[in-house]
Order: sequence, then structure tokens, then C-alpha cells
Amino acid sequence: MTAREPLPERCEPCSGDTPALSRGAAEGHMAHVPDWTLDYPRIRRGFKLKDFRAALAFVNRVGMLAEEEGHHPDFHVTGWNQVELVLSTHAIDGLSLNDFVLARKIDALAAKDGLG
Amino acid sequence: MTAREPLPERCEPCSGDTPALSRGAAEGHMAHVPDWTLDYPRIRRGFKLKDFRAALAFVNRVGMLAEEEGHHPDFHVTGWNQVELVLSTHAIDGLSLNDFVLARKIDALAAKDGLG
Repeated sequence: MTAREPLPERCEPCSGDTPALSRGAAEGHMAHVPDWTLDYPRIRRGFKLKDFRAALAFVNRVGMLAEEEGHHPDFHVTGWNQVELVLSTHAIDGLSLNDFVLARKIDALAAKDGLG
Repeated sequence: MTAREPLPERCEPCSGDTPALSRGAAEGHMAHVPDWTLDYPRIRRGFKLKDFRAALAFVNRVGMLAEEEGHHPDFHVTGWNQVELVLSTHAIDGLSLNDFVLARKIDALAAKDGLG
């Protein structure tokens, strides 16, 4: 599995049978989401917003996207205006393709907001 | 300063001059917010919601309250439906009366939502 392999368009429903990515496979997929940090078996990305309202609005937009995909990051809103998103696949306590699919969609949303 | 001393009705604007509570004073004020845990110089309370939508809705309600008070907790939304709120006073990197004022208001909001 290499970074050249395209990601699926959408998250697949997660279950205990969702394939876990090995560390090597995860490292390969990091090329799709270069603004994220691999903290195996998680990936994380921080955002700095202009104020608390903007941070909360961003959390809501990511939250709506997560609901559409049926896959949810952990959200950490700290110090008024910082949002850290942490992605992993709870059903397998590991990292799956779904995490990269959602990360890439979050990146597109953030870029639209002028955040990346 | 004892637990019997009433809390102010509203948060005061925070600045570097906001008085920091000693550990003993903070312990006394914990009687006002028995569902919170003192992790000096912070206080924290966790909530379990029925699903992600409910968790996000709760974060938004607490966020609106925080904006009204001009005082903002850190929010940690993890594992789909868990919300942990952490209060401290960033301007003094410590704990102030404002943290207890906001914690009590969050408790009232949570009770209205049937959360405690």
C-alpha cells in the first residue's frame, strides 16, 4: 500500500472487521494528508482560529461532516481559539482508511475556511 | 474563604490582576460544585451524552454560556459521546472565582438537560 494508491471517496461503515492499517501503511497514507501528524495509531491536526466563536463554528462544521461520514474525530478545544482533531477508528482501537478519508475531507473544509 | 461564602452571580472580566485562588480556597469552593473534580489549578467535569449530535449540541450550549460570561472552558469531545470540560483562568494560569461561577452555571444547564 503506497501513498500513490487513491483513497476511497467516502468512509465505509466501521466495525470490528474494519481492516487496521499497519504503521508502514499509515506512513504511506500520510502523503495524502501532509498537514496531519502520525501519532500511531492516531493522526492529529491542530488549527488556530481567530476567536472562540470561530473555533466553535469550525467544530460544528467538522461535526456535520463527521455525521455525514459516520466517523467522528475527537475534538479538543483549548485556550479560547485552538482546535485539535484526533482521528482513529474506535471500533478496532486502531487506524483505518476511514481516518484518512475523513482527514482529507476536513482538510478541504479547512482550506475553504482559509485555515490551510 | 469557605464554601459557605456565596459565589458571585457573574464572571468578572479576567486579567492578569484576577486573584488566583490558593489550593485551600479552591478546596473550600468545591462544595459549590460537587460534581466537579479539583485538579489544581483546574477543575474538570465529564458528561456522557446519548450520541455525537447530543454531545455537539451540549458543547454549543456550554459555548454560548461561556461567551455570555466571557470565560471559556477547554472542551474535550472523545469517543462519540463524551464531553469533558476543564476550567481554569488562562490570564493568570491558575484558578479563580470565575471558574467556579461558570462551573455552577454549567451545572444548572446540564441539570436542565437531564445530565446531572
